[in-house]
Amino acid sequence: MIKIAIDAMGGDYAPRETIKGVNMAIEMFDDIQLIVFGDEKEIRKYLVENERVSVVNTLQKIDMGVKNAIAEVRNNKETSMVLAFRAVKDGSAQGLVTAGPTQAIIAAAHLYLKRIKGMARVALCPSLPNIGGKERLFLDVGANIDLRSEHIVQFADFASIYAKETMKIEKPLVGLLNIGTEPGKGRELEKEVFELLKNDKNINFYGNVESKEIFQSECDIYVTDGFTGNMVLKTIEGVTKSIGNLLKDEISKSFSNKLGYLLMKNVFVNFKKTMSADEIGGANVLGVQGVVIKAHGSSTAYAFSQAISQARRTVQADVIAKMEKLIDSSGKNE
Amino acid sequence: MIKIAIDAMGGDYAPRETIKGVNMAIEMFDDIQLIVFGDEKEIRKYLVENERVSVVNTLQKIDMGVKNAIAEVRNNKETSMVLAFRAVKDGSAQGLVTAGPTQAIIAAAHLYLKRIKGMARVALCPSLPNIGGKERLFLDVGANIDLRSEHIVQFADFASIYAKETMKIEKPLVGLLNIGTEPGKGRELEKEVFELLKNDKNINFYGNVESKEIFQSECDIYVTDGFTGNMVLKTIEGVTKSIGNLLKDEISKSFSNKLGYLLMKNVFVNFKKTMSADEIGGANVLGVQGVVIKAHGSSTAYAFSQAISQARRTVQADVIAKMEKLIDSSGKNE
Repeated sequence: MIKIAIDAMGGDYAPRETIKGVNMAIEMFDDIQLIVFGDEKEIRKYLVENERVSVVNTLQKIDMGVKNAIAEVRNNKETSMVLAFRAVKDGSAQGLVTAGPTQAIIAAAHLYLKRIKGMARVALCPSLPNIGGKERLFLDVGANIDLRSEHIVQFADFASIYAKETMKIEKPLVGLLNIGTEPGKGRELEKEVFELLKNDKNINFYGNVESKEIFQSECDIYVTDGFTGNMVLKTIEGVTKSIGNLLKDEISKSFSNKLGYLLMKNVFVNFKKTMSADEIGGANVLGVQGVVIKAHGSSTAYAFSQAISQARRTVQADVIAKMEKLIDSSGKNE
Repeated sequence: MIKIAIDAMGGDYAPRETIKGVNMAIEMFDDIQLIVFGDEKEIRKYLVENERVSVVNTLQKIDMGVKNAIAEVRNNKETSMVLAFRAVKDGSAQGLVTAGPTQAIIAAAHLYLKRIKGMARVALCPSLPNIGGKERLFLDVGANIDLRSEHIVQFADFASIYAKETMKIEKPLVGLLNIGTEPGKGRELEKEVFELLKNDKNINFYGNVESKEIFQSECDIYVTDGFTGNMVLKTIEGVTKSIGNLLKDEISKSFSNKLGYLLMKNVFVNFKKTMSADEIGGANVLGVQGVVIKAHGSSTAYAFSQAISQARRTVQADVIAKMEKLIDSSGKNE
C-alpha cells in the first residue's frame, strides 16, 4: 500500500472538490491508502466511505489568500496542510497532495520535511500542457527567484531522474530556456548553466531553447530560474485563456458560426482539455525528503485525482532515494 | 513630407516583400517620401515607380543569420541597413524601417544614431496582439538583458510619452510584469522598480501585473527587463502557433469538423489576423536620436507597410523631442 496524506482544505473549492477527487482516486487505484486532514464534518458530506480512507479532524486551515504564509506555517502546526506534512515527516504517509497556496507549501516543505542532503534548493516542477501528446517537465516555476547556475543544474539532474523513472524515458532530453538558440546567448546565468549542463555526464543536453519552441522541441525537460519559469508558465495560461475568449466572441457573432461550432464542438472540447490545468495534475516539489504534490488552486475533483495519481507514481518510482544516491556519488553532500 | 529611409534588403523575404510593402505604404499615405536602400536591380523588379520613392543602390547587405552583428555593422558602412541609419543621422530621413536582424539594428542604433542625452539604455518596444481591440506597448523585449531599476523607469517614462502622443491616451496606465500582484513581490529589481514607478509623477502606475493577465488588464504599457520580455513575447508567439496547429489537427479528424470549419471559417481567419505579427507592425527602438522601426524578420508586404505606417506616426508625434525635454526637466542629462 502506498500511503498518501491529503490536505482536504486547500484550494478554491475545498473540501468539496478535494474529497470528490479522493473518491475518484480510490476507485482508480487499489494500491493506495489516503489519510485525509481537515474539517471532518464538512469532509463527510462528500466522502464515500472506504476502508482505505481515514479522516483526521482539524478545524484549522490555511486560507488561500494568506498574507504571511511562512509565519502561518511556522506558528500553526494544526492546520490541515501542516498536518499532512507532519504525516510524511513521521512516516505515516509517503507523500502528500495539497491545493493550498504555493508559498505556504514551499515554506512547509522546508520547515517540516527538510531538503535532501546536498540539495541546495527546492524546485516547483509541473508538466506543460500535452500539445502533440508529449509530456514535458518544466522547472523551476517559482519556488526560487534567485538561483545560481549550480542550482539549476541540480534541478536538471533531479528532473532527469524523475522523467526516467516515472515517464520511462531512458535518456530524457534537457533544454535550457533562453532568448536565442546559439551557445553564448543569455545572461551570465544562462551562459554558466549551458557550460555546466554540456559537461554533466548525467544529463542528455539539447542546448538552448527559445520559448516560442516550447511546444515544438524534442525536449522532455526545460530548466530555467523560478522568476522566468513563473512568467512563462503564466503567459501560457493567459494566452490560452485569451484565445479561448477570442474564439468564443467570434463564434457568437453569426448564426453560421454557431452552427459550425455545433458541428465541430469536439475540436473545442479537445482543445480545452489539452490546455487545461486539470489534465496536468500537480506540480512536484522536488528537493525535499518526501513526495509533495501541489495541485492547482482551482483544482476540480478530476484535477485533484490526477494530482493524487501523480503522488502515487512519484512514490512508486522512488526518485528521492535515487537523487540522494546521485548527490552522494558526486560528493556534493559534503 | 515625412522622409523615411527603408532597408530593402533586411528580412526573410527581402526585397520582394519589403518593396511590395513600400508600394502599399505610398498608396496609403500621401505625406510620406521613401528613400530605399538596396540592390537596385532587384528592387526595380517589384517597385511601382512613384515620384515620392527614390532608390539608392548598394550591393552590400547584412545576412539574417549574421554571426557577429556588431562587427558587421561597425566594419561595413555600405550595407543597406547601415545606409538607412546614416540617412537618419545626416538628416536626409527622419526615421527608418528595417526587417534585419535585431542585434544588428540595436548595434547600428547605438553606433550611428547615439542615445538621447541622459537616456541610459535603448529599449525594443513592440505592441502586443490586439486581443479585445486594445493596443498595449511592451518593453523591453530584448535590447538589454541586464537592466537596472532606473533604466526600466526611464522606459516607462518614454513609453508613456509615446502612448500619449501616438495612441492619444491622456494618461497611459503602466503595469510592471511580476510573479504576483501584491507590492513586495518579485526580485530586488521588481521591488525597486515598483517603488520608483509609484513615486514617479509622470507615470500613471497600475502596479504589478502577472503574465496571465497580460491580455486582460487595463494597462496600456507593460514594462520588464529585456530577458523576461523576450521570454514572454516568444511564449505568446509559440503558444499561439501551437494552438493553431492543435486546432488544425483536430479539424482534419472528421468530415463533420471540416464542414463546421467551412461554416465558421471567418472565426479562424479573425483569430489568425488578431494574433498575427503582421498586424502589430514593427517594434520601436526607443532611446536613440531618431525614429527606428524594426519590422518582424518574416514580414509580409502588409506587415512591412504597417511598420512604415508606424514610423510615420512616430515621426509625426515628435516623441523624441518630448522625451529629451522630460529628461532635461528632471536633470537626468547631467
